[in-house]
Amino acid sequence: MFRSASSPPKKQAVTPRQIRTRERADRGIPEATVARLPVYLRALHSLQDRGIATVSSEELATAAGVNSAKLRKDLSHLGSYGTRGVGYEVEYLVYQISRELGLTQDWVVAIIGVGNLGRALAGYGGFASRGFRVAGLLDADAGIVGAHICGLTVEHIDELETVIKDRGVSIAVIATPAGAAQVVCDRVVAAGVTSVLNFAPVVLTVPEGVDVRKVDLSIELQILAFHEQRKAGGPMGDQAEPEYEVLEGDGPSDGAQYIEAVDA
Amino acid sequence: MFRSASSPPKKQAVTPRQIRTRERADRGIPEATVARLPVYLRALHSLQDRGIATVSSEELATAAGVNSAKLRKDLSHLGSYGTRGVGYEVEYLVYQISRELGLTQDWVVAIIGVGNLGRALAGYGGFASRGFRVAGLLDADAGIVGAHICGLTVEHIDELETVIKDRGVSIAVIATPAGAAQVVCDRVVAAGVTSVLNFAPVVLTVPEGVDVRKVDLSIELQILAFHEQRKAGGPMGDQAEPEYEVLEGDGPSDGAQYIEAVDA
Repeated sequence: MFRSASSPPKKQAVTPRQIRTRERADRGIPEATVARLPVYLRALHSLQDRGIATVSSEELATAAGVNSAKLRKDLSHLGSYGTRGVGYEVEYLVYQISRELGLTQDWVVAIIGVGNLGRALAGYGGFASRGFRVAGLLDADAGIVGAHICGLTVEHIDELETVIKDRGVSIAVIATPAGAAQVVCDRVVAAGVTSVLNFAPVVLTVPEGVDVRKVDLSIELQILAFHEQRKAGGPMGDQAEPEYEVLEGDGPSDGAQYIEAVDA
Repeated sequence: MFRSASSPPKKQAVTPRQIRTRERADRGIPEATVARLPVYLRALHSLQDRGIATVSSEELATAAGVNSAKLRKDLSHLGSYGTRGVGYEVEYLVYQISRELGLTQDWVVAIIGVGNLGRALAGYGGFASRGFRVAGLLDADAGIVGAHICGLTVEHIDELETVIKDRGVSIAVIATPAGAAQVVCDRVVAAGVTSVLNFAPVVLTVPEGVDVRKVDLSIELQILAFHEQRKAGGPMGDQAEPEYEVLEGDGPSDGAQYIEAVDA
């Protein structure tokens, strides 16, 4: 639900200042900022849905669960500074972030492993609305191959290389059991895929130039357990709550949503 | 598959130095370190499965997808320094990290929303093996209530407060559609739950003292898209690959697995 590169909003007329700031921005965006851009984008889409045209850095920061100084710094990497007393224009900022993330084009995705998780991913609305088009579902289980899921027919894993090449798959989503994941990963990489999203509970080895992002559904639970334990009195179970190392200016105002990974 | 607090490995006899370092450690562990501990833990379990008793910081760092200086710094927060020339004892480090994360006790989890994702979570092996016991599955859909999934019977959402209280649920996993998530969140918080893992595509508002971790399955894809685009020549589609801001000593050696959120 964002604009394509061919139809940017009218605000896109580029001023000399924007050219300078864009050149500056292109020198490099920290990984931490890249990781937060999708979070800002989601908050902005939510504002758009409510018909809100401009947003202050404080409002947007609260909606995204970060502090406003960090938000402003992050957006400055895109060459986006907002207007004092007005804030950011929602539509233009959506365009800027989408462009930066590469969401102004479609990405073709194949999901390998069609168990409950693969099915959940196949039907996940958040993919399609952000330009991720699932073009293939593959599984090794003859009992699943041929099933119709979310408009696609599950294909046999033997077809993997053909599916990748014929449909222009650029991102492989691995939702297989742990034992199959590395073999599948090696195959998708050999077929030319350089971006892998891994849901299998295993660390994948990939050659240089291939990006792997790992989603371990239990890791977030473990981080919650850490905090839950601290609330209950620390790892020894009988201590007063320890003093936390407070990272300056960090942390959302309403609970610990989107705790940011900041290393001093 | 880790030890409980009541049966620590023999190595746990505490020396004065360990007491000092533990006191130091308890003053605070950075959030970024907390977020990486589960990753180290998974790598360590994998080493245990292969019968490996000691590991160098380099090997463990590679397995976890971070650089070894960061690993050593992270583990120093636990008061764990390894032995020069030998490395870390796998079993003891597993115990230390598990203890720190609160995984040496069981956590009772309820999953609210039993669609494909809720089912995938109910059957997710990574939960049980790390001490997260799913004690309740709840849904508002009469067509799902009563279904038997992974040894549990799906209960009606009306039973939410009763399930939380009677079974001692301390972590709620919300896997409902976006529109239902805030109402469910308010109810679990009112029932005394202070840790929420949210899979619904919406930012939840919670009172102070409640931790929310958000899993958005599309955010990782968006980060991959960013890198995929950069490989293809940047957001303008016609530029040379920009020079990246290289964070000193950061980044794994074999591809960008577990890209760390480090903000200079």
